[in-house]
Amino acid sequence: MGDPAAPASRPPAVCLVSGGMDSAVVLAEAREQGFAPHALSFRYGQRHAVELEAAARVAEALGAVEHRTVTVDLSALGGSALTDAMEVPKDRSRDVIGEGVPVTYVPARNAVFLAVALGWAEVLGSTDLFVGVNAVDYSGYPDCRPAFLRAFETLATLATAAGAEEGAAFRVHAPLMELSKAGIVLRGRELEVDFGLTHTCYDPVPGPDGRVLACGRCDACHLRLDGFREAGFEDPVPYA
Amino acid sequence: MGDPAAPASRPPAVCLVSGGMDSAVVLAEAREQGFAPHALSFRYGQRHAVELEAAARVAEALGAVEHRTVTVDLSALGGSALTDAMEVPKDRSRDVIGEGVPVTYVPARNAVFLAVALGWAEVLGSTDLFVGVNAVDYSGYPDCRPAFLRAFETLATLATAAGAEEGAAFRVHAPLMELSKAGIVLRGRELEVDFGLTHTCYDPVPGPDGRVLACGRCDACHLRLDGFREAGFEDPVPYA
Repeated sequence: MGDPAAPASRPPAVCLVSGGMDSAVVLAEAREQGFAPHALSFRYGQRHAVELEAAARVAEALGAVEHRTVTVDLSALGGSALTDAMEVPKDRSRDVIGEGVPVTYVPARNAVFLAVALGWAEVLGSTDLFVGVNAVDYSGYPDCRPAFLRAFETLATLATAAGAEEGAAFRVHAPLMELSKAGIVLRGRELEVDFGLTHTCYDPVPGPDGRVLACGRCDACHLRLDGFREAGFEDPVPYA
Repeated sequence: MGDPAAPASRPPAVCLVSGGMDSAVVLAEAREQGFAPHALSFRYGQRHAVELEAAARVAEALGAVEHRTVTVDLSALGGSALTDAMEVPKDRSRDVIGEGVPVTYVPARNAVFLAVALGWAEVLGSTDLFVGVNAVDYSGYPDCRPAFLRAFETLATLATAAGAEEGAAFRVHAPLMELSKAGIVLRGRELEVDFGLTHTCYDPVPGPDGRVLACGRCDACHLRLDGFREAGFEDPVPYA
């Protein structure tokens, strides 16, 4: 009571938590910046259940007020290796990964996820959304660019009762935007994020002891491993 | 082959079809304007199955190329009579219906639905979305205002590969925006829309012969019945 660090006195924020390393650092940032983070994950099409388990672990470990998972069945629309049965590309060079729109791009995914987050923010009386988009992603994904996030803030303010009637201005926080993967690793370590709880791989395989192993060869694994290597730390998750 | 009226030569458009009378007229307008309409419906939380059946009937009857239903489980977020178990208000005057944000407002619903429609448009190679928002709705729903739709067009162009790489400009068509409910009835009759296929009621009841009956007392029924009365036509759907 009256303690400025107590959760009840902190403004609520909605944080998109995928189970990956980026959104884990974002959740820790939201807490560090004084918000009471509410973690939001998505079940979409054939998305790996292992990611949602990681999201639940991350939300719990990093002190989210609550964690909700919303089903958005984007697989009904087709168009991506993550929701279709298309093959996930392996062992592509970093130059290729950074070129054009990746095959793993899900059409308008961030627009959909942010719109759902906005709906929850309205229910919570929150005007702050946190997302884990960053510079490495935004070389390939159109919906990870700063201009997209600013356009979403404008839309959010116009879309909602809070914005329309009370003049609330929504803000989309993207604290990783300017960081490299190595920079995200370093910031996560400062914030005491346990990266061993996170899951990144697009194509995980079951390990001999029942643990899930990352493939180490998809684009996501390569970006993650490069990040840890450049940061000078070992990635704590197990690889095949 | 070479026939300008043949579906293959028409540009694709994504039309949000709820099963209600407004979106039925919009689907007919899209076809009338020369588009090949792809009908999109949503299964969200406790949304009545009867609406989705009406949406399928409408899409079929009005010549949609295809009809898809995407699950978006907004009930996980709470906040509205349409997804929560809150009571649907009955027999409110038209003045009250038009005042403030209605209790049946689903947080950020149109932002979510348009974002999913945008994803499908990307897959289809379409830059045209059709929605049934109109002046009567926009007195109460913040996400039915023209400024919201213009902001969404800006977002869509920034959010997508088509917009980012090829400079495609998305357009959100809202052909009912300036029409009253009576005007929508009249326009629908011009376009030969069978309103008997549509479903509007927030709180339908089973009829003695197995048909679904509209309650005739919720806000949606009152607006619909007033529209038919002002247009000078009888509403063909059965009421309790």
